[in-house]
Amino acid sequence: MTALVPTLAPPATKPVTSVVRLADQWYIACTSRELRQAPLKRVVLGVPLVVFREGDGRAATLLDRCPHRNVPLSMGKVVQGRLQCGYHGWQFDGAGACRAVPGLCGVAEGKGRRTPAYATREQDGFVWVFMTADVEPATEPYRLPRLNEKGYTTARQTVTAPGSLHATIENALDVPHTAFLHAGLFRGQGEPNEIEAIVRRWEGTVEAQYVGEPRPEGLIGRILSPSGGIVEHYDRFLLPSIAQVEYRIGTENHILVTSIGTPVSDWETRLYAVISFRTRFPGWLIKPFLRPIALRVFHQDTVMLRAQTELIHRFGGEQFVSTDIDVLGGPIWRLMKQAERGEVPTNTEPEEVRRVRLRV
Amino acid sequence: MTALVPTLAPPATKPVTSVVRLADQWYIACTSRELRQAPLKRVVLGVPLVVFREGDGRAATLLDRCPHRNVPLSMGKVVQGRLQCGYHGWQFDGAGACRAVPGLCGVAEGKGRRTPAYATREQDGFVWVFMTADVEPATEPYRLPRLNEKGYTTARQTVTAPGSLHATIENALDVPHTAFLHAGLFRGQGEPNEIEAIVRRWEGTVEAQYVGEPRPEGLIGRILSPSGGIVEHYDRFLLPSIAQVEYRIGTENHILVTSIGTPVSDWETRLYAVISFRTRFPGWLIKPFLRPIALRVFHQDTVMLRAQTELIHRFGGEQFVSTDIDVLGGPIWRLMKQAERGEVPTNTEPEEVRRVRLRV
Amino acid sequence: MTALVPTLAPPATKPVTSVVRLADQWYIACTSRELRQAPLKRVVLGVPLVVFREGDGRAATLLDRCPHRNVPLSMGKVVQGRLQCGYHGWQFDGAGACRAVPGLCGVAEGKGRRTPAYATREQDGFVWVFMTADVEPATEPYRLPRLNEKGYTTARQTVTAPGSLHATIENALDVPHTAFLHAGLFRGQGEPNEIEAIVRRWEGTVEAQYVGEPRPEGLIGRILSPSGGIVEHYDRFLLPSIAQVEYRIGTENHILVTSIGTPVSDWETRLYAVISFRTRFPGWLIKPFLRPIALRVFHQDTVMLRAQTELIHRFGGEQFVSTDIDVLGGPIWRLMKQAERGEVPTNTEPEEVRRVRLRV
Repeated sequence: MTALVPTLAPPATKPVTSVVRLADQWYIACTSRELRQAPLKRVVLGVPLVVFREGDGRAATLLDRCPHRNVPLSMGKVVQGRLQCGYHGWQFDGAGACRAVPGLCGVAEGKGRRTPAYATREQDGFVWVFMTADVEPATEPYRLPRLNEKGYTTARQTVTAPGSLHATIENALDVPHTAFLHAGLFRGQGEPNEIEAIVRRWEGTVEAQYVGEPRPEGLIGRILSPSGGIVEHYDRFLLPSIAQVEYRIGTENHILVTSIGTPVSDWETRLYAVISFRTRFPGWLIKPFLRPIALRVFHQDTVMLRAQTELIHRFGGEQFVSTDIDVLGGPIWRLMKQAERGEVPTNTEPEEVRRVRLRV
Repeated sequence: MTALVPTLAPPATKPVTSVVRLADQWYIACTSRELRQAPLKRVVLGVPLVVFREGDGRAATLLDRCPHRNVPLSMGKVVQGRLQCGYHGWQFDGAGACRAVPGLCGVAEGKGRRTPAYATREQDGFVWVFMTADVEPATEPYRLPRLNEKGYTTARQTVTAPGSLHATIENALDVPHTAFLHAGLFRGQGEPNEIEAIVRRWEGTVEAQYVGEPRPEGLIGRILSPSGGIVEHYDRFLLPSIAQVEYRIGTENHILVTSIGTPVSDWETRLYAVISFRTRFPGWLIKPFLRPIALRVFHQDTVMLRAQTELIHRFGGEQFVSTDIDVLGGPIWRLMKQAERGEVPTNTEPEEVRRVRLRV
Repeated sequence: MTALVPTLAPPATKPVTSVVRLADQWYIACTSRELRQAPLKRVVLGVPLVVFREGDGRAATLLDRCPHRNVPLSMGKVVQGRLQCGYHGWQFDGAGACRAVPGLCGVAEGKGRRTPAYATREQDGFVWVFMTADVEPATEPYRLPRLNEKGYTTARQTVTAPGSLHATIENALDVPHTAFLHAGLFRGQGEPNEIEAIVRRWEGTVEAQYVGEPRPEGLIGRILSPSGGIVEHYDRFLLPSIAQVEYRIGTENHILVTSIGTPVSDWETRLYAVISFRTRFPGWLIKPFLRPIALRVFHQDTVMLRAQTELIHRFGGEQFVSTDIDVLGGPIWRLMKQAERGEVPTNTEPEEVRRVRLRV
């Protein structure tokens, strides 16, 4: 058969795409609240998974495919702590072993009747899965800071971004676009200020410290610190998929936004965002304002990420050009590629990479 | 141009798919009742066909593509027993010859103006087509047994299954799934009984005889034979695409379900089911109960077949594991592959292949 | 990963498709009225374009992709005559140069920050774009005849055809299908007349003159020339994409339909039709009848072109057979292929190619 090109090729580009696939890592499969009686269908790194609770309530994750006739196990149900396929009733435990084959005269278990199992942890209100099957991981999932700490209030939000993990994380930690895309919410009002970004690296982390920024004039800044003051601002990326924004405004306000990315596929990223904050106002007063603002910001980012992803596909790849003020996109990408090659830096002391002046 | 992988590859499997394409065979294109004045668009083995009635009422089948400008002939109409294209009005007879080219000064007929024709038979209320073009077949379509036989009632139902021919036929002849997927309708109530299956083969047929099964406790069994009794039960596959289930329950009840498959494409199968039965009740009393039960059973199977097909595509192939009680799936597959190689067995006496014990 | 064939291959054909991609040519991007304050998203030859008006009102066309992070520039807005990206606010002038990078301390312009620009002209109410980027074309767009000429009335209509440029143009200039597909509107009533077509070629033009046709009996003919009379009828194709039909009916009526094709992609063509006419009735009386008739004709053609395109894709290519009365399809295709090779004929005097008799 012939390959019929449906559309004319746009101007040629090199087939570059900023996609990594880090399988030996922990990702969030779902929130603890989402996982109840019924098995839950999830996709991580393009792999169909089924998450369920065993008899003792412990979360377990299997490849979402019955080894018998390849229907999704997530179409079945949990029976006495085992996951039962809906087609012929085969039952699997949390380790992936087949424990029952209805109708069969003989032993149910068998090596060929296993389904791959993924190490699973429940921690900080999330169910984490290690994306290499049938291994006991040497690491544990990331622990969220400031959770349940006295004086801090926490809010959570899950959203899905139509972009690659790298594009979504770069967007989450990108300062210049906030003045345009989110004009009025953070920045983008009044005269810009020239500030300095100091980029540092250690182990699986890259961080930008922004020095000299006055309190943003936008809505969020005014609510949090009406009297102004100097801002302490850090943007951090932690392998494999965590974007963290930390603000201290004046003496009273401390805000920590941790967005943990799950690469659903090469071009879709689920973000589990956790905001922990301490402000001059009580948390219960601030919290109702957070969600609508966060969702509006996220919606604006989503529109851009979707358009970016579509255009990358249309052109068969990316052709980005960066400037000095694309502060973290490059270092994050290099760290991801190092992790892909198994060469993550080992220095535990922050190493200064470069300094950049920018106007915000 | 570059190939951009849209989703991460799931765990690698061997690229196996249970698909055969037997073109030198008869399949049902449509029912006699469906074929009226207008030409009928059909797809068999992925080939677009147009079925129509010639002047004498005889059914004819052509490739559904005008040789002139490649629009579907099924968009046209039948004019004086010829099929007229809707674009420029070219006319074709049932043998595929071009008989008129409006506007042309000269002869309409011409070798290059033919369209491929497929041998067609109307029999037992179906229009059958032989899927190799422009040949006179050496065989005739399958004749349905017990049709119009005294004491028997017949019901028909056409359904479309989102699965390959093999997956659909295996499902139609699979005993163990009935206890789960169709729990309560046939089996799946009360304690299971251990019975024996004897598998036999001859020519293009493979058959399983189930010995020792008491009357099923489900709804259908109770209606047919309220007093219980021993069941005689045969499941048969006949090349290229026929699944037949035969039950004798007690002395009075004889039920024959013949499902004739038309492979629309590699992953879609149309089933023309004919149920002929003789029971202790008059046929007119039984018949109204049949359709809703059959449609419910079929809907449950459809959901599974669709999920199976989707997952096979997602993984780029099948990775099935079978047990002893997958009684007919393997033998059917081997027979289909033999037919593909032109090596169908010639023994006319049934040969016993194996015996299996199973619990139903 | 494996290539899984979703559908059976229909009978094999040679992978021929009548598609050319003539990039060094002028096409219509949009009408003048469509291009206002906001940037306009367009696709020509499969290339995403953004059209906008610079500060002086002049139309400009850029590749619709920001060189920074590859989002469509058409999602932004025009600010002081420059096109501003909606993501980070980069600004571009009509020549594709980057003129502002918000936040950057330093020069905005830079070679790597350019976006390809396409020569653009506004003429006869259309915005034309030359589809080779970053060159100054040696030619100018086609000038529409009879526009604003005394005694003539003009009507315009834009439609999108689901077919390749060649299929759409052949359809627009094809005489025989009018008797069938558009039966009653032009021709197709009463006895056919045998007439002669004379095909002539010169430079980038091929023309068929139809000699001896009486006034068509259809609706359009009766309105225009109720008293009958002999028809002068020319069908013309002009490179790269113009189909022109010219009628003189009797002494009073002169009708010129120019359909200028824009190849949106290989299989979608936008047609900008301009009808200039002088009839025995005043133009204001005729004009209200034109649009509904034109739209009906076009709808019938659309249905056929879509079905043709779908079937070509299904079979992986075309397998056309032509007759003598497919008068212009072949010559147009040969001219398009010559243009693709840069070998357009240079004779300025019409050269007679052949004569054909046909019945209309």
